[in-house]
Amino acid sequence: MKIGILISGRGSNMTAIIEAVRDQRIPDAEVSVVISDKKNALGLEKASERGIETIVVARKNRTREEHDAEIVNELEKRGVELVCLAGYMRLLSKDFVRAFPEKIINIHPSLLPSFPGLDAQRQAIDYGVRISGCTVHFVDEHLDHGAIILQKSVEVTNEDTSATLSAKILEHEHTLYVEALRKIVGGKCQIIGRRVVFEN
Amino acid sequence: MKIGILISGRGSNMTAIIEAVRDQRIPDAEVSVVISDKKNALGLEKASERGIETIVVARKNRTREEHDAEIVNELEKRGVELVCLAGYMRLLSKDFVRAFPEKIINIHPSLLPSFPGLDAQRQAIDYGVRISGCTVHFVDEHLDHGAIILQKSVEVTNEDTSATLSAKILEHEHTLYVEALRKIVGGKCQIIGRRVVFEN
Repeated sequence: MKIGILISGRGSNMTAIIEAVRDQRIPDAEVSVVISDKKNALGLEKASERGIETIVVARKNRTREEHDAEIVNELEKRGVELVCLAGYMRLLSKDFVRAFPEKIINIHPSLLPSFPGLDAQRQAIDYGVRISGCTVHFVDEHLDHGAIILQKSVEVTNEDTSATLSAKILEHEHTLYVEALRKIVGGKCQIIGRRVVFEN
Repeated sequence: MKIGILISGRGSNMTAIIEAVRDQRIPDAEVSVVISDKKNALGLEKASERGIETIVVARKNRTREEHDAEIVNELEKRGVELVCLAGYMRLLSKDFVRAFPEKIINIHPSLLPSFPGLDAQRQAIDYGVRISGCTVHFVDEHLDHGAIILQKSVEVTNEDTSATLSAKILEHEHTLYVEALRKIVGGKCQIIGRRVVFEN
């Protein structure tokens, strides 16, 4: 299965996915391309170093629809079948979502539906939760809203700041994202209502 | 510390608290009264059987404020210092909350702020989360909103229904509520922002 990864920043989840594919922890997969909407995203160099083609598709004051159409075109040209968002900081348009039905995945650093949107770890600290975590989910056109594939909980202590909580969650993000992709690539999955069910 | 418990139904968390106080798992505490807003709440008999005074304060088409004033009066007459909601199905008025500042506690069967309100377990199943749980929190005048004392996570499987998830969470509710009360009764606690911090 050909995977395309979208980034906007350092791409730490991108790196985790590339290395898991390389090491066959996600078998029968290949990372075909990494696309960034920011030309100076730190993840671009990390992808190149690992032998992955990289493209920058800048926003250039275009509408979301125009920008997304170019990204979809680049993905389709390369036969990408599964799109992974890894710190990609733009909401996808309906047309993008419809171009890859149930084939776009994201990870978010909270236990959704708590704390969608930016700075989820800061939101969790400010709310005073004792448990937060991360969520791998399918992407729809609403923010951090699609059907949930996997979640992992993380304890929040009184000593935690937004930074320490982010670091704790990030460790789990890498393993959770890889585990979700292994399931998605390796088996058939169905979304029943909002529930993601894997067939053996 | 004198505890008053408010119920509307079977009062399973009420029973857990009464027995934990009796067995000294919550030391230096006494359950002084159980108050129900429904005359046929099953918990009333369970409280009586365990030697606790019970009162019914029915709503009788009164405003929330009038109804709450009578409950507050009954609690104050008995010198209650800590109010525990245990399946009490009515939002408290501002005046009730102000009569017991930072001394009213509730348990909710979700990881707040996800799924506040009625049927939290059904909401969790319908949303398709992989992790839910329960939350012990201070009560303010907003629904399931006050500062969080403790949370416990519970895994949701594909086989879970609202009923099985409720049963799994309920087990943890009893131990979590008792643990929270032991901390509240046994030590000084401060709410800093929304964060509940216990001094040793």
